[in-house]
Amino acid sequence: MRIDINCDMGESFGNYRYGADEEIVAHITSANVACGFHAGDPLVMNRTVALCVRHGVQVGAHPSYPDLLGFGRRDLAATPDEVRDYVTYQVGALAAFARAHGTRLSHVKGHGSIYNMAARDQGLARAMAEGVARADPGLLFVCLAGSAMVGAGDEVGIQVVSEVFADRAYNADGSLVSRRLPGAVIHEPAAVAGRVVQMAVHGTVRAISGEVIPVAADTVCVHGDTPGAAALAAAIRAGLVEAGVSVEPMAGRP
Amino acid sequence: MRIDINCDMGESFGNYRYGADEEIVAHITSANVACGFHAGDPLVMNRTVALCVRHGVQVGAHPSYPDLLGFGRRDLAATPDEVRDYVTYQVGALAAFARAHGTRLSHVKGHGSIYNMAARDQGLARAMAEGVARADPGLLFVCLAGSAMVGAGDEVGIQVVSEVFADRAYNADGSLVSRRLPGAVIHEPAAVAGRVVQMAVHGTVRAISGEVIPVAADTVCVHGDTPGAAALAAAIRAGLVEAGVSVEPMAGRP
Amino acid sequence: MRIDINCDMGESFGNYRYGADEEIVAHITSANVACGFHAGDPLVMNRTVALCVRHGVQVGAHPSYPDLLGFGRRDLAATPDEVRDYVTYQVGALAAFARAHGTRLSHVKGHGSIYNMAARDQGLARAMAEGVARADPGLLFVCLAGSAMVGAGDEVGIQVVSEVFADRAYNADGSLVSRRLPGAVIHEPAAVAGRVVQMAVHGTVRAISGEVIPVAADTVCVHGDTPGAAALAAAIRAGLVEAGVSVEPMAGRP
Amino acid sequence: MRIDINCDMGESFGNYRYGADEEIVAHITSANVACGFHAGDPLVMNRTVALCVRHGVQVGAHPSYPDLLGFGRRDLAATPDEVRDYVTYQVGALAAFARAHGTRLSHVKGHGSIYNMAARDQGLARAMAEGVARADPGLLFVCLAGSAMVGAGDEVGIQVVSEVFADRAYNADGSLVSRRLPGAVIHEPAAVAGRVVQMAVHGTVRAISGEVIPVAADTVCVHGDTPGAAALAAAIRAGLVEAGVSVEPMAGRP
Repeated sequence: MRIDINCDMGESFGNYRYGADEEIVAHITSANVACGFHAGDPLVMNRTVALCVRHGVQVGAHPSYPDLLGFGRRDLAATPDEVRDYVTYQVGALAAFARAHGTRLSHVKGHGSIYNMAARDQGLARAMAEGVARADPGLLFVCLAGSAMVGAGDEVGIQVVSEVFADRAYNADGSLVSRRLPGAVIHEPAAVAGRVVQMAVHGTVRAISGEVIPVAADTVCVHGDTPGAAALAAAIRAGLVEAGVSVEPMAGRP
Repeated sequence: MRIDINCDMGESFGNYRYGADEEIVAHITSANVACGFHAGDPLVMNRTVALCVRHGVQVGAHPSYPDLLGFGRRDLAATPDEVRDYVTYQVGALAAFARAHGTRLSHVKGHGSIYNMAARDQGLARAMAEGVARADPGLLFVCLAGSAMVGAGDEVGIQVVSEVFADRAYNADGSLVSRRLPGAVIHEPAAVAGRVVQMAVHGTVRAISGEVIPVAADTVCVHGDTPGAAALAAAIRAGLVEAGVSVEPMAGRP
Repeated sequence: MRIDINCDMGESFGNYRYGADEEIVAHITSANVACGFHAGDPLVMNRTVALCVRHGVQVGAHPSYPDLLGFGRRDLAATPDEVRDYVTYQVGALAAFARAHGTRLSHVKGHGSIYNMAARDQGLARAMAEGVARADPGLLFVCLAGSAMVGAGDEVGIQVVSEVFADRAYNADGSLVSRRLPGAVIHEPAAVAGRVVQMAVHGTVRAISGEVIPVAADTVCVHGDTPGAAALAAAIRAGLVEAGVSVEPMAGRP
Repeated sequence: MRIDINCDMGESFGNYRYGADEEIVAHITSANVACGFHAGDPLVMNRTVALCVRHGVQVGAHPSYPDLLGFGRRDLAATPDEVRDYVTYQVGALAAFARAHGTRLSHVKGHGSIYNMAARDQGLARAMAEGVARADPGLLFVCLAGSAMVGAGDEVGIQVVSEVFADRAYNADGSLVSRRLPGAVIHEPAAVAGRVVQMAVHGTVRAISGEVIPVAADTVCVHGDTPGAAALAAAIRAGLVEAGVSVEPMAGRP
């Protein structure tokens, strides 16, 4: 039994500071680093990759729609060609910083709306996967477990990593409960840690409707921009270790 | 005797078209492709790299200050760290499109003010060279012949390519005559072609003050955004071939 | 019988030129001037307002989603508050240039997706109308004839101007035929002019399905970014004058 | 004896929070509100103007070079025409939000490099003053006391307000000591308050070289983005009141 813990990082921009990267980096195994489209800038990217390397954390790209003003969280009617090329551009930009620090990117995980739209839309999922493969076919493609992205990665021939969310409620069909609905986010640390252990050990999660559903959990996402994020990540990690799950960097499906 | 002919390309953006890439590509051996900071966007970059590959033209990155509104032509008081990381970012982004099209970047040439400032300022020249080396130490660094950039490339340990300008007048110290002065730009095609041949064959150019000065000419820049650009490039190439100069992709100093 | 002829103008940006403003300005009575979000920049805005003033053309704001890369043509999931404040910001910015040239803005017309989305969505239409009223309640609000925007303008208490499109086909419900469908754009100048005359004189148009439907035509939009735009505008204007329709600047419903 | 206390506000952007506007607003009489070029966005501007109105604080525009990435703090070689139009654009945009909240702008104060460059360069100072006058000739023009901006405002015919800095050391010629030099910033609250009182009451300040020099102090700038900013502003205000100085909104030279 093994699982990766990933977290978004490098979301500062210019004069603006965001997140608690220096604290959270100690508790994760993979970082999704912003690439300048929703957050991040070249100096922040350089600093963030350096931080990850110092802590032995795997570096991945976190591409987004080009929407700094909306932090990449607003749906945008970009075409599949635009999505594909936006991904390639951002992955390439971050890959250069990885090289500058003597490492290589391990994975790509879409940010915000580009991730959510690709999870629902086969064409966008395919475009994302192609954007990854064109930048580097050896990269892992982090996909919402059970979503359209998984099939797209398979079609394009890149390795897929199935992602679960530590503090989000699931619908019975395996999709995430919308943040606009009550109960969408689970706040109690012990409950969060317990759910992650169940997902990692048993490959199941209790949906908001009550039934227990299967879920593939190669990596679990923790959030770095909420108060107490580092403590929550530490609690999740401790829970996993106690349950005998090895917390280690993500690797694609063989 | 050999020389490369380079030209800026891929300077369209979104809905805006710029330059005559499809015409000029037939006459050059290296393209400097905009990377999104002064011009270009992911789709334009993808299309431009594809165009270069179809024509067997070498692809290089053309990084700039982040100033789309000023087309990268305005001096900006960026720090050396900013310059370094801006270069790494842009080179990486374009490198991913090169990979997508089955090729590799050959070179990096700064655009507009970042090139001009680095030609005069040892610290910025060094920052640019480091930005290139961190992205990929195998890239050629295109430098204004005789400028501060040449020494910076040597210090950092990347291969330097000395560049001359086909249609620009030179001062006696080897610097370019400011565009604000009369006679700065040479418009007559035969005169332009003749100067390039002299630079390629003899390694000299007649300065605006009258004396003949030495100039290292590994590559010559032609401009693609002026009327008659393709015809001028063709005339230069024909003049070089007639004079027995081999027109071939740039290679760094051994 | 009277009608206004409006056209989008000032859509250049920095080093990029777009449209044929200098030619088309002679044939129109109102200009929709880009405000920097999808196109335009402060210098272009200044130049465009000056051009309009010289030609006695009314100046209006042409606000957009903040999407220079997509030229404001991509749907964006902005909230009503965002839409409202984006409109206020852009109207205010252009109003200052109007004042600089001794005139005042006459109207506001949304650009691209913000116009199309507001035509369909009551909440966004209301947000746009509020954005206009907050900047200046004396401005005319240009609305797709028969769309949700008309009611929103009425609710907010600003004067509404109903707009028709010279070269676009209509569905039987008065909406525009999607550009993705065949027949959506009418190219033959005489046919275009004839339709505009019918809309201005009879207040009707033949829908793509064949029936004649009513349409309120206070202003007709001509496009300035297509080849032959000035000639088409001139043909429309000549047709209107010949039919006894007075071509004069838009005025709101009394 | 009277003086205004001004502070930069509204420097958040999208998802990023910056400054302590809600705390500092209680202690000042004028706010310089960012207009989207170095910081701020339409929603932030709307929220900030509303905050100022609730607290009876005068609202002014805080235009900048277009450099969000550099927070407007980097020198940029913009032309006087660019500076003029950038100022008009930003003033107009904010003026619309003032109108939305039932007030009017009182003043304009340049931000960061555009202020510093205009303080030294007569041409840029003139361009700034023209940009203000073109947007609204009734606005007050906040100028570094004794700088080139003062004469430029006089030439253009707008009212000038001379500004001093509470926590900055002065050179003997009345210019500010560069932040790169030791002693440039004064941190001790009592010392800061004492200096402001001396400037307001006596119209003098002790330069870093020791001599007492004259300085016109119509308004004093306090910084809102440093820890303890609100406490410092309160201390300055209390010191002024105790010394019999009326703290009231700025007004131009009669």
